[in-house]
Amino acid sequence: MALTPEQIAEIEAQRANSAQTLRAVSPGMEGRLYTAHPVLDHGLIRVIDYMGDDEAICQAARVSYGKGTKAVSDDRGLIRYLMRHWHSTPFEMCEVKFHVKLPVFVARQWIRHRTANVNEYSARYSILDREFYIPSADQLAAQSKQNNQGRGEVLQGEEAARVLDLLREDAMRSYDHYEDMLTPDTDTGKLGLARELARMNLPANIYTQWYWKIDLHNLFHFLRLRADPHAQYEIRVYAETMCDIVKDWVPSAYEAFEDYRLGGVNLSGKAVEVLKRRLAGEDVTQETSGMSKGEWREFAGVWG
Amino acid sequence: MALTPEQIAEIEAQRANSAQTLRAVSPGMEGRLYTAHPVLDHGLIRVIDYMGDDEAICQAARVSYGKGTKAVSDDRGLIRYLMRHWHSTPFEMCEVKFHVKLPVFVARQWIRHRTANVNEYSARYSILDREFYIPSADQLAAQSKQNNQGRGEVLQGEEAARVLDLLREDAMRSYDHYEDMLTPDTDTGKLGLARELARMNLPANIYTQWYWKIDLHNLFHFLRLRADPHAQYEIRVYAETMCDIVKDWVPSAYEAFEDYRLGGVNLSGKAVEVLKRRLAGEDVTQETSGMSKGEWREFAGVWG
Amino acid sequence: MALTPEQIAEIEAQRANSAQTLRAVSPGMEGRLYTAHPVLDHGLIRVIDYMGDDEAICQAARVSYGKGTKAVSDDRGLIRYLMRHWHSTPFEMCEVKFHVKLPVFVARQWIRHRTANVNEYSARYSILDREFYIPSADQLAAQSKQNNQGRGEVLQGEEAARVLDLLREDAMRSYDHYEDMLTPDTDTGKLGLARELARMNLPANIYTQWYWKIDLHNLFHFLRLRADPHAQYEIRVYAETMCDIVKDWVPSAYEAFEDYRLGGVNLSGKAVEVLKRRLAGEDVTQETSGMSKGEWREFAGVWG
Amino acid sequence: MALTPEQIAEIEAQRANSAQTLRAVSPGMEGRLYTAHPVLDHGLIRVIDYMGDDEAICQAARVSYGKGTKAVSDDRGLIRYLMRHWHSTPFEMCEVKFHVKLPVFVARQWIRHRTANVNEYSARYSILDREFYIPSADQLAAQSKQNNQGRGEVLQGEEAARVLDLLREDAMRSYDHYEDMLTPDTDTGKLGLARELARMNLPANIYTQWYWKIDLHNLFHFLRLRADPHAQYEIRVYAETMCDIVKDWVPSAYEAFEDYRLGGVNLSGKAVEVLKRRLAGEDVTQETSGMSKGEWREFAGVWG
Repeated sequence: MALTPEQIAEIEAQRANSAQTLRAVSPGMEGRLYTAHPVLDHGLIRVIDYMGDDEAICQAARVSYGKGTKAVSDDRGLIRYLMRHWHSTPFEMCEVKFHVKLPVFVARQWIRHRTANVNEYSARYSILDREFYIPSADQLAAQSKQNNQGRGEVLQGEEAARVLDLLREDAMRSYDHYEDMLTPDTDTGKLGLARELARMNLPANIYTQWYWKIDLHNLFHFLRLRADPHAQYEIRVYAETMCDIVKDWVPSAYEAFEDYRLGGVNLSGKAVEVLKRRLAGEDVTQETSGMSKGEWREFAGVWG
Repeated sequence: MALTPEQIAEIEAQRANSAQTLRAVSPGMEGRLYTAHPVLDHGLIRVIDYMGDDEAICQAARVSYGKGTKAVSDDRGLIRYLMRHWHSTPFEMCEVKFHVKLPVFVARQWIRHRTANVNEYSARYSILDREFYIPSADQLAAQSKQNNQGRGEVLQGEEAARVLDLLREDAMRSYDHYEDMLTPDTDTGKLGLARELARMNLPANIYTQWYWKIDLHNLFHFLRLRADPHAQYEIRVYAETMCDIVKDWVPSAYEAFEDYRLGGVNLSGKAVEVLKRRLAGEDVTQETSGMSKGEWREFAGVWG
Repeated sequence: MALTPEQIAEIEAQRANSAQTLRAVSPGMEGRLYTAHPVLDHGLIRVIDYMGDDEAICQAARVSYGKGTKAVSDDRGLIRYLMRHWHSTPFEMCEVKFHVKLPVFVARQWIRHRTANVNEYSARYSILDREFYIPSADQLAAQSKQNNQGRGEVLQGEEAARVLDLLREDAMRSYDHYEDMLTPDTDTGKLGLARELARMNLPANIYTQWYWKIDLHNLFHFLRLRADPHAQYEIRVYAETMCDIVKDWVPSAYEAFEDYRLGGVNLSGKAVEVLKRRLAGEDVTQETSGMSKGEWREFAGVWG
Repeated sequence: MALTPEQIAEIEAQRANSAQTLRAVSPGMEGRLYTAHPVLDHGLIRVIDYMGDDEAICQAARVSYGKGTKAVSDDRGLIRYLMRHWHSTPFEMCEVKFHVKLPVFVARQWIRHRTANVNEYSARYSILDREFYIPSADQLAAQSKQNNQGRGEVLQGEEAARVLDLLREDAMRSYDHYEDMLTPDTDTGKLGLARELARMNLPANIYTQWYWKIDLHNLFHFLRLRADPHAQYEIRVYAETMCDIVKDWVPSAYEAFEDYRLGGVNLSGKAVEVLKRRLAGEDVTQETSGMSKGEWREFAGVWG
């Protein structure tokens, strides 16, 4: 990620500009505001604004007139109770707004989460920058043989070099032609293709940007799916950066999320039965479990 | 609206508790925070939190790194352009959280707007207060003869007195019985009915409370429908109070909303044709307009 | 539930009116269409329309041009896989529309699920019928002593009789006064209160009606919460009736839902550790579990 | 659009497979089901399923038990009333499911409408086909000089030829390299890049496919924005095809949509004042109108 001097100056100006407010303030989040957190080779995440903190979750749950006299330990307990019992509305009472720079193929996956507000940089209106995601050597993985939508071992030597060359060359050539098509020439009378058309030549690893705003409940849902080890690496690193940020913002809510969602496990009715039989000393196999092979493999992956 | 001394103290404590923030601050909204704005006889609206200001709308529209060097007048023009062309996503980038106390029959209408986050005081979990909406004399209106869902002239004399007596007496008696059913008695062994059942005896003019959070675009949509003269008076007064608050929060956005939505008019294709014919000097009647009688009546209501 | 002869005739007319279609047809659901399934004392659920079947879920998951040559057993396996891995979008491709008659206090809980389309009978526009929910004797429960939002033992004898009398009498009196306030009298010049005002006198056990349309994924979410033993009885019976209907509509999807959601268990990270220690032979207590007392009580409720 | 013989056979099999249903049937829509309507060079729209018809809109608005005895003309009048007064919930009671094949850059614009259900063909899981959108000669437009997000005159001669060559060659080369990176080679030990990575090399004019399901109210909102002359041509042709389909499905609702939305005009409060002054004989100019120059230009575009 290389910010221009102008962008750095704009970020510093925002961080220098403090004011008084009567609203709930999260000290951890104030430390994060505006700063560009690098992700992938040219991507970033910046917190632009936030609403609420751990206490605000509890106030909403109690529909209270003020902060009350509850201790922090009570709030932590209440938050764990709300998370455990899927009371989602108090978590919806916090909101966060990010500025994200990300490759288009990641953006396409990301946007499938519909419960957020999005304002994307428009390639119909503006010209995109010459910035493309090129995987680092350790992320250049082969197709998985077990999992149709996963990665296997890392490419090596010549094959790796060739892939990187192709990605780089195709990106550069496509961008050259994009620029070429766009640019009018008064000498020759060349007009310059409409931006809304020229953009179709750009590959999916070009970077785009958006403002993305979401409430805490729906953010947790996004993070549970995208910070999961089965999520594609290129979106997972964004989710992990957001996890770090949320931990600073609402420490108690994040702790509960980590315990009940990220680190939690969903058991089917069949799986509950198998575990109960095991706890009673029975030796259960896939054949006697009632599960399919695929299901048993996933179950055994957690429970042995 | 009668706040308890404890509630007043809690509100004052919140207004006394100022802190530094790097976020966008709206001076007009800081002046509104936490204060209870009275609505109807016992209702209220309080701003609990907000995110963003006029400038934040423009920053989101530009997906920018900083505040830029744009003048306020540029921002105002951009906001008007966005509103005029139904570019809704930048307005979604502002958010507000209200604490509202309102009669249940108003809450039932209000909740039909689904694009908001709600946390309501639970009558399953807690006991409601003895507070009921009783219309003031000038709002005690007869059924409209023209409009199936509207009001006509105001009731007078004995009829008005009788209606007010019935509403008051039924409310008090229902609440007495609610309390009676709920209260256990160790002497007699009386158990006390479950709160989730006892609540069914309470009429729709009892007050409830909720935290309600919504983005600015969807709030404008709510206000356009509910601050409209055809909306029921009892919800319109809440909408009007919110209009005053939003005007202080995002003055440019509110001005654009007022011009293009609240004070605007939607013309059908037929209505456009009629106006063009009139501008060309033709005398158009309902018969020659192609409109139905009902449509023509509404059209003539605006254009004569 | 007492339908009028007109309503019965209308339902029979709809069930008699068969036509040809090229769309996916679910035989189980055709058997349910239009028929009034009774719920509570005066409530009902009717299926008005549906879209899709088990096969349609699989076609959407495959984004296919046709039905393909997949066997039913393949479809069942795919549906289980999608459910297990929280791939929700294929389930969103089925839709169902219900006509529901339900007490207002149940409707207020129900409407908190926002991901549905609702069209409610308007008491602003029309006059409601004199129909109120009065609990049956076995549902007249005392407040739970352990659970703030639950029921304890059933009321008996005099207390039960008194509660039923109060509910019945207050409902009838409120309705008498509602009618009285509404009714104009040309002899005396009495005007009749506006319907939008008179309705405020009606208690929360009066019945309302709505058309409610939702996709299968969001319906499953609703059913998981509302068919749960902790849900209030008066909404749970509606959820259970819908479960029976959905089972007839999409048998494979319902089976997967029953195994992975209804009969499933969510384990926190802490709970996973405790179970692993138990499976390894350790005797874990609340003190050594890292769980709070409340959490341990819930854990022990499932696992002993 | 070139369908494979297998796809044609699948579509014909679906159209040959008629069954009885008790549900509302729209004859116009039955004629559309499954058939591939071509859009652009390789795109298509197919109706996969639908729920409801004009009558169903009215039944929902009336929350009725049956079809009632209302005449079609009454239904048409009610539908126009509902549309005119922004009563959106009855229109939400109809639903439609499309299969759409479209270029990725169109899909990216389309997906910004969040109130729909989407299931997209996964390039993480599967290999995309070698199909790219190449504009026809009459759509190869230059950047507009007035409108930052619009098109100007059509490119001619050599420039046009060069642009088409670049688009075609870059598409083919990118796809060659995509295939090359993907393909393992057991002889050389070449592994084959993961599909979730290789896809990043593909440009935005490659075709993707999805199932897209939406209710009628939200579809009308989509069509109003995307069938508008200011929408980009490549998405507008999809919207226009859907307009034709919806007209066959719900003729009365479409007629009302056409009159009040597509052919309608929104006037600001300022514009209402100007028109009233003009009707009163005054000669209003931009200077005396209170409008900005841009606003006046748009106003004069409609009203002269």
